[in-house]
Amino acid sequence: MKFSYELDELVDLLVPKKVVGHTSFPISHIESLTKTKEGGISFLGNPKYKKDAAISQASVILLPMGLDLTPKANQCFLLFDNPSLALGKLCRDIEEKYCPHPIVGTHPKAIIDATVSIGQNVSIGPNVVIEANSTIADNVVIMAGCYIGHDVKIGDNSVLYPSVKVMDFCEIGSRVTLFSGAVIGSDGFGYETVDDIHEKVPQIGNVIIEDDVDIGANTTIDRARFSHTKIGKGTKIDNLVQIGHNVIIGSGCLIVAQTGIAGSTTIGNHVVIGGQVGIAGHLNIPDGVMIAGKSSVANYKPKMGKILRGNPTMPINDANLFYVLRSRIPNLFDRVLKVEESLRELLSK
Amino acid sequence: MKFSYELDELVDLLVPKKVVGHTSFPISHIESLTKTKEGGISFLGNPKYKKDAAISQASVILLPMGLDLTPKANQCFLLFDNPSLALGKLCRDIEEKYCPHPIVGTHPKAIIDATVSIGQNVSIGPNVVIEANSTIADNVVIMAGCYIGHDVKIGDNSVLYPSVKVMDFCEIGSRVTLFSGAVIGSDGFGYETVDDIHEKVPQIGNVIIEDDVDIGANTTIDRARFSHTKIGKGTKIDNLVQIGHNVIIGSGCLIVAQTGIAGSTTIGNHVVIGGQVGIAGHLNIPDGVMIAGKSSVANYKPKMGKILRGNPTMPINDANLFYVLRSRIPNLFDRVLKVEESLRELLSK
Amino acid sequence: MKFSYELDELVDLLVPKKVVGHTSFPISHIESLTKTKEGGISFLGNPKYKKDAAISQASVILLPMGLDLTPKANQCFLLFDNPSLALGKLCRDIEEKYCPHPIVGTHPKAIIDATVSIGQNVSIGPNVVIEANSTIADNVVIMAGCYIGHDVKIGDNSVLYPSVKVMDFCEIGSRVTLFSGAVIGSDGFGYETVDDIHEKVPQIGNVIIEDDVDIGANTTIDRARFSHTKIGKGTKIDNLVQIGHNVIIGSGCLIVAQTGIAGSTTIGNHVVIGGQVGIAGHLNIPDGVMIAGKSSVANYKPKMGKILRGNPTMPINDANLFYVLRSRIPNLFDRVLKVEESLRELLSK
Repeated sequence: MKFSYELDELVDLLVPKKVVGHTSFPISHIESLTKTKEGGISFLGNPKYKKDAAISQASVILLPMGLDLTPKANQCFLLFDNPSLALGKLCRDIEEKYCPHPIVGTHPKAIIDATVSIGQNVSIGPNVVIEANSTIADNVVIMAGCYIGHDVKIGDNSVLYPSVKVMDFCEIGSRVTLFSGAVIGSDGFGYETVDDIHEKVPQIGNVIIEDDVDIGANTTIDRARFSHTKIGKGTKIDNLVQIGHNVIIGSGCLIVAQTGIAGSTTIGNHVVIGGQVGIAGHLNIPDGVMIAGKSSVANYKPKMGKILRGNPTMPINDANLFYVLRSRIPNLFDRVLKVEESLRELLSK
Repeated sequence: MKFSYELDELVDLLVPKKVVGHTSFPISHIESLTKTKEGGISFLGNPKYKKDAAISQASVILLPMGLDLTPKANQCFLLFDNPSLALGKLCRDIEEKYCPHPIVGTHPKAIIDATVSIGQNVSIGPNVVIEANSTIADNVVIMAGCYIGHDVKIGDNSVLYPSVKVMDFCEIGSRVTLFSGAVIGSDGFGYETVDDIHEKVPQIGNVIIEDDVDIGANTTIDRARFSHTKIGKGTKIDNLVQIGHNVIIGSGCLIVAQTGIAGSTTIGNHVVIGGQVGIAGHLNIPDGVMIAGKSSVANYKPKMGKILRGNPTMPINDANLFYVLRSRIPNLFDRVLKVEESLRELLSK
Repeated sequence: MKFSYELDELVDLLVPKKVVGHTSFPISHIESLTKTKEGGISFLGNPKYKKDAAISQASVILLPMGLDLTPKANQCFLLFDNPSLALGKLCRDIEEKYCPHPIVGTHPKAIIDATVSIGQNVSIGPNVVIEANSTIADNVVIMAGCYIGHDVKIGDNSVLYPSVKVMDFCEIGSRVTLFSGAVIGSDGFGYETVDDIHEKVPQIGNVIIEDDVDIGANTTIDRARFSHTKIGKGTKIDNLVQIGHNVIIGSGCLIVAQTGIAGSTTIGNHVVIGGQVGIAGHLNIPDGVMIAGKSSVANYKPKMGKILRGNPTMPINDANLFYVLRSRIPNLFDRVLKVEESLRELLSK
């Protein structure tokens, strides 16, 4: 992406507490301190990287107040209470000014049933299909190739990236982002096995995604057997995650990539789940629990505490201790063998 | 989904062994016993939840015969040998009557090569692409945006949800369901490394999916290097599963989400594989083996028995014992230290 | 796939060092030694399967020089220094002659912005969408339903299978293959949590995929927060892999299915990563490291050596030793108990 900011523009935009030095280079790239070159901007998020700032070739560096560094020739330091927030502000400005914005209106190659209700200021891309009786609220963006089933509701200001699928009867809240390839409302994995034949259990529930949720690319969220699979307000889910049927997830959770949650499990509010975690079905994970990446949760009891790790999970301190001792186990076998030999000698005397 | 059943209709449909009490509410939702409200129906699948039935606000409850509970005012109990089967019957009726059904015929925005053979009563949605020489049997449903390559065969009564990809030369049986985003017949991951360069090994085989198979959303099944990758009759595969090239899976297996099976492994009949399991390549897993979720199978020998767990897998009893002892290992180190000290004292006497 | 080779054609194509015996069957399938039938060709890659060659029903078998086997009636042996390479040559010939080739030109149902630059000999399938200012070099194949965002560059001779998504500003090199459903350049999973609300951090970087890279089906590679997520030259990535934002992967790596690499981690050159591996964020994995399948890498230090295994990873010999001892741990508990009892007896004397 090409962008360009003169030093004056940056100062006007970010309003630093202090400006030290000056640069004549327009700023056209953002990089880490050691990779930035002339015309680049960088930032010091963590004081332990102060050395990197001292040798950085960046033309502009965002620094925390109180750092005793002197800019080189043609280099400018902008000082803030929180340089990371200042960088975020710049990134949002770049996004606003330099990233392409969806075109309001329905592309002529979209295929939309006559019964669909579409709000104000909606953008619908080419090859989008929207089936009967669905409702699209104001300011929604539905990008190329998305499929919206029958009787779907999509709340205002939500964004669907290319090739998202939202199946019949699902409900998407406001300000929800669904990234490319996500499948919302595919059938749950439910079978009754009679005489070795797996007969499908009908999956007639839906998925409800509350406001301010993000769902990552190629993530799959299954519809309920009946009633609802639910993702609570403000929860953020990463790529390639699997959410089973009838799972209920609370608000404000973070679920990292490739995690799987089996059917009918309930997750509380503000739960944080690392990547590649597996959680068994029919469990109840309370508010505020944190689960380390690659863990598997076979059950949960309050005495396990709030931070879990392991396969299957233990309280994190137990898990960390086990991982330390694990490498000393060969030595423990040797020690026990020596003890046995000593004892045998003692006893034979 | 909106539906409505008067009590009379329910009784006619489900034919209970006994009717106790009466309700005037039409039934318009299904929920668990503790969540159901007026106008709702629920069921008691497991007698241990009898307490929930006693306090449920459901207007109709499906119960097993022989339960001594009395309905509240305006509440009706329907008694069955198997209430779960009765609920299944109701769900299938709702599916039949209230879920949208695909429209027979080819959507004008489908793009189908002139050489494609299409059976009777087929439904092909918008933006579907079918390449030359493919054959689509009777009663097949291919939903929006699917891609069917060259020389593909799809058997009767199969259903392809939106955006399924079936690549050249693959063969899909009868009554197969492929859920959204599944990729059938992508190239296997095969390279020969010569002088540090990974040269691609041509993947000219195909994928054969036998009758009555389900394949989950965003699952990927790779085509064989040559000959076939094969999924046996009646096997059900969940979402985000990876099946490598030349894998042969028997009939009646269940494979839960996010599992991966590496190339050239053979899986017998009626094998059950939990979620997030990894199975190495070139293995032979015999009929009836069960593998607990999150396990990894590095090899298989008959003495391991039929139920496996762990990373890498052990016989399940060994794995369960290890997981119990694991938390006592710190204590074992302490005990060995004490023993060593005692011995040292004894020897110094 | 149907193909047919007379023995003469095979000899002309493969140029064996020696021909023993003769077959009149035209060759129309390739299979393993024990599964091949009349009219089939097979090969002996590993001398330990010599027995299989002796009983094989294949009409033609590719064998290593110096094997003292005699063909049956109507069976022909073709001898090579490397029979596996000869088979590869045959497979490439079949691919060339019998697999469908993309049609050069832009399908009338593709939707391409007027500002897009398209090279010579390019094939663009139906329902492809290419947004403004993108550049497609010579000999590129973009199959049905792909989405190419704004300002994307795709290098010459690259192939995009159906329904690949390449988001705004990403850069794809030459001879790159992106398999079906891959998502290149979705937003990284970055939030700042303020008062329990997860606020999205703008993701304004891109993804750069260098020359000769393959990316598997339904794999997701996130765009950088700023600057680049990068996949180095000649690296091959399997299906359903997750690459986080700002990850830098070197050249010539192999990354097997369902592996996940968290944000800002750097992977060196010629690193080999097994299936279902998890690698934490902000790590630095040096050149030539190999990581066994299902492992999780929480950190890396040079003393760990170059081959890692375990959850979390250990040097592979330590991991293998631990897995052997793991099954003897119950016995170790018994031994320590006996030792304690003996000691108690001794001390009580």
